[in-house]
Amino acid sequence: MGTVGGGTVSVLSRNAQEIARRAGRGIHISHAAAREYDPSLPGVSDIDRISDDAWAVVDDPEVAIVIELIGGYSPAKELVLKAIENGKHVVTANKALIALHGNEIFSAAQEKGVTVAFEAAVAGGIPIIKAVREGLAANQIEWIAGIINGTGNFILTEMRDKGREFADVLAEAQALGYAEADPTFDVEGIDAAHKLTILSAIAFGIPLQFDKTYTEGITRIEPQDVAFAEELGYRIKHLGITRKTPTGIEMRVHPTLIPERRLIANVDGVMNAVLVYGDAVGPTLYYGAGAGAEPTASAVIADVVDVVRALTTDPGNRVPHLAFQPDKLSSLAILPMEEVETAYYLRIQVQDVAGMLARVAGMLAEEGISIEAVKQQEPAPGESEVPLVMLTHRVREKRMDRAITRIEAFEGIRTPVIRIRVEHLG
Amino acid sequence: MGTVGGGTVSVLSRNAQEIARRAGRGIHISHAAAREYDPSLPGVSDIDRISDDAWAVVDDPEVAIVIELIGGYSPAKELVLKAIENGKHVVTANKALIALHGNEIFSAAQEKGVTVAFEAAVAGGIPIIKAVREGLAANQIEWIAGIINGTGNFILTEMRDKGREFADVLAEAQALGYAEADPTFDVEGIDAAHKLTILSAIAFGIPLQFDKTYTEGITRIEPQDVAFAEELGYRIKHLGITRKTPTGIEMRVHPTLIPERRLIANVDGVMNAVLVYGDAVGPTLYYGAGAGAEPTASAVIADVVDVVRALTTDPGNRVPHLAFQPDKLSSLAILPMEEVETAYYLRIQVQDVAGMLARVAGMLAEEGISIEAVKQQEPAPGESEVPLVMLTHRVREKRMDRAITRIEAFEGIRTPVIRIRVEHLG
Repeated sequence: MGTVGGGTVSVLSRNAQEIARRAGRGIHISHAAAREYDPSLPGVSDIDRISDDAWAVVDDPEVAIVIELIGGYSPAKELVLKAIENGKHVVTANKALIALHGNEIFSAAQEKGVTVAFEAAVAGGIPIIKAVREGLAANQIEWIAGIINGTGNFILTEMRDKGREFADVLAEAQALGYAEADPTFDVEGIDAAHKLTILSAIAFGIPLQFDKTYTEGITRIEPQDVAFAEELGYRIKHLGITRKTPTGIEMRVHPTLIPERRLIANVDGVMNAVLVYGDAVGPTLYYGAGAGAEPTASAVIADVVDVVRALTTDPGNRVPHLAFQPDKLSSLAILPMEEVETAYYLRIQVQDVAGMLARVAGMLAEEGISIEAVKQQEPAPGESEVPLVMLTHRVREKRMDRAITRIEAFEGIRTPVIRIRVEHLG
Repeated sequence: MGTVGGGTVSVLSRNAQEIARRAGRGIHISHAAAREYDPSLPGVSDIDRISDDAWAVVDDPEVAIVIELIGGYSPAKELVLKAIENGKHVVTANKALIALHGNEIFSAAQEKGVTVAFEAAVAGGIPIIKAVREGLAANQIEWIAGIINGTGNFILTEMRDKGREFADVLAEAQALGYAEADPTFDVEGIDAAHKLTILSAIAFGIPLQFDKTYTEGITRIEPQDVAFAEELGYRIKHLGITRKTPTGIEMRVHPTLIPERRLIANVDGVMNAVLVYGDAVGPTLYYGAGAGAEPTASAVIADVVDVVRALTTDPGNRVPHLAFQPDKLSSLAILPMEEVETAYYLRIQVQDVAGMLARVAGMLAEEGISIEAVKQQEPAPGESEVPLVMLTHRVREKRMDRAITRIEAFEGIRTPVIRIRVEHLG
């Protein structure tokens, strides 16, 4: 009964009548385990039994559905597997657990004929798992691009709105409680990669493959890049992107320039949004709070209602965990990042001498990279270097790697090239 | 097999494998009725039997699920009722049918233990019925505001982007096929009112009450109002709004000023979006194509997959048609428009003499209406009247009605007051 657990108890209690009017029966917490909790929290007094022993909950014969809101890998994994072994359905908000151990967990659940529901694991209160898995069931999903980490989006929004530095905004986000004391999972994209792994699996019918996700954080984004992007008509967002190509599936988290007219470019602050492109439906977008006690509780409880409804269905007719029947998963490979094709934003600090643009453009051309737009500033008084900013057309990452190696080796370039990928999401 | 029917046949055929990988079985069209159709359409050759007799389809013992894509009230209603009587499940995209006759149809279906699914009836390919009915099941829905007519949104977007007149853009929309030859249903808000009636019922657990929806079209929106709104930081959208208040439920379709920073204010062209506010989840938004052959087919087929999965469930455990158990619907009244509270944009043509603003403000004050912002232009050379533009704070509609009557009776005012409602959607 931490943040999400407390929210779940509270929403279940406050909206008990509304939920029962929908589900056709009341949903009751018969047994809860919490290391510590606030007994005055709304709904806590309705719980039959509260102990500090989570193992007693998963072994309790009175419990039909186990809700796991501990987070982390252990003992969450062992508890979930034990609940399944005991024939109980499971609802979890644990993205790390599902992204890394979902294949094993779903396989155990499948064997036992129980459901493991995980709507709250991706994008908090947004019913995105349901939308992709059921709402878009007619489609071949082509790609998904999502803002799926609220902390990162808050930081990038503040950097843009106020021209602030990354470290400065991060400190504020920590003070506000939007970022953890150790912000690595959020700002390095690991949390987003967990969620993207899940989205990719349910979109394309592939096993969960967290270890194959390319992950790049936002810690090196500078205010000048945010400003240059803006001048070029783009916003920088930390996106999770997964795309099916004829040769394999892209699965990548990185800062991305997107055209400012796209709806998703205007998703600001701690909010999340997921843009899904299906071959029949075209683009659809899902927006809402990606974290927080009650938004996450909203998803947890929706899962509980679904599971309650499925108690009397034969397991073969339930929605499969990963959207596709477990014996029909695809073995399509995850593409290594060097094989991924995107457009690029490049910022190169060049000596303020004639001919530098021609030199750089020439080195890009030698790798077959063509340029879409260029911005070159006048040097500030006393400065001998100027930023040369370019947008390129789409090219395979390994070609760009080679071009950058070439540019950085050039005598007139003394600092590393800044490279941010560009997606038009059209 | 018109637009949506043809799209459904085509998507079912093209994505047959993907759909079967999800649903765990193939979905096959065994019998279709069409007055005329293109035999070269993809998927048509897979259909066992095509006739021009829809009654033969609903009576065919081989048919498990009837998909109704005729539209309109009759014979759609009779066919759907007959299909139900024959114990068949029904999937329909027919918003007019559901909004006007849904109570009767769902009651018949309930009695027979069959499902009538209607995801495609609201906002085309966006899985909004599923989101509200299942994804947000934990919430007390507080309000919904949606751009749920693509034609109207296309017209308003063009008027804003290019400063064009309503009639001019409507003619273009008709030429492009975005608007019907008789555009009444779209531009007068009737189509949106059908969809809003359905959203309101599933959000609040009330019966469908189309006849109680307040409906106002966009035909009187002038380019100058679009421009004034923009100067004040707002966009004009044709919204369907439903809200639960302690005294009753608001259900209204009308042009609305919304702050330009809201995500939904940036939903342009023919696209649809629905913003839903739940007490636990906060705001969530769902965006996508609201019409068209394949987006609508996407929703139709998702419903078919859901129904296929529910074939073996006991009817009592299915998701109820109107989200809430049929014996648990609420009798909360629909508020008449005069009892609805909103803020207002007013444009008043006043004589260009001193003191007019004070006079108008005084008349508003006498009805307890306070002013948030005012814009008054210099008169054009040779003009004796100027537009006085005001934004008011929230007030009950009947007070505004009285204030406008008073203003229009004033000797210095010679043309009707233009009034557009304002919603902050915060």
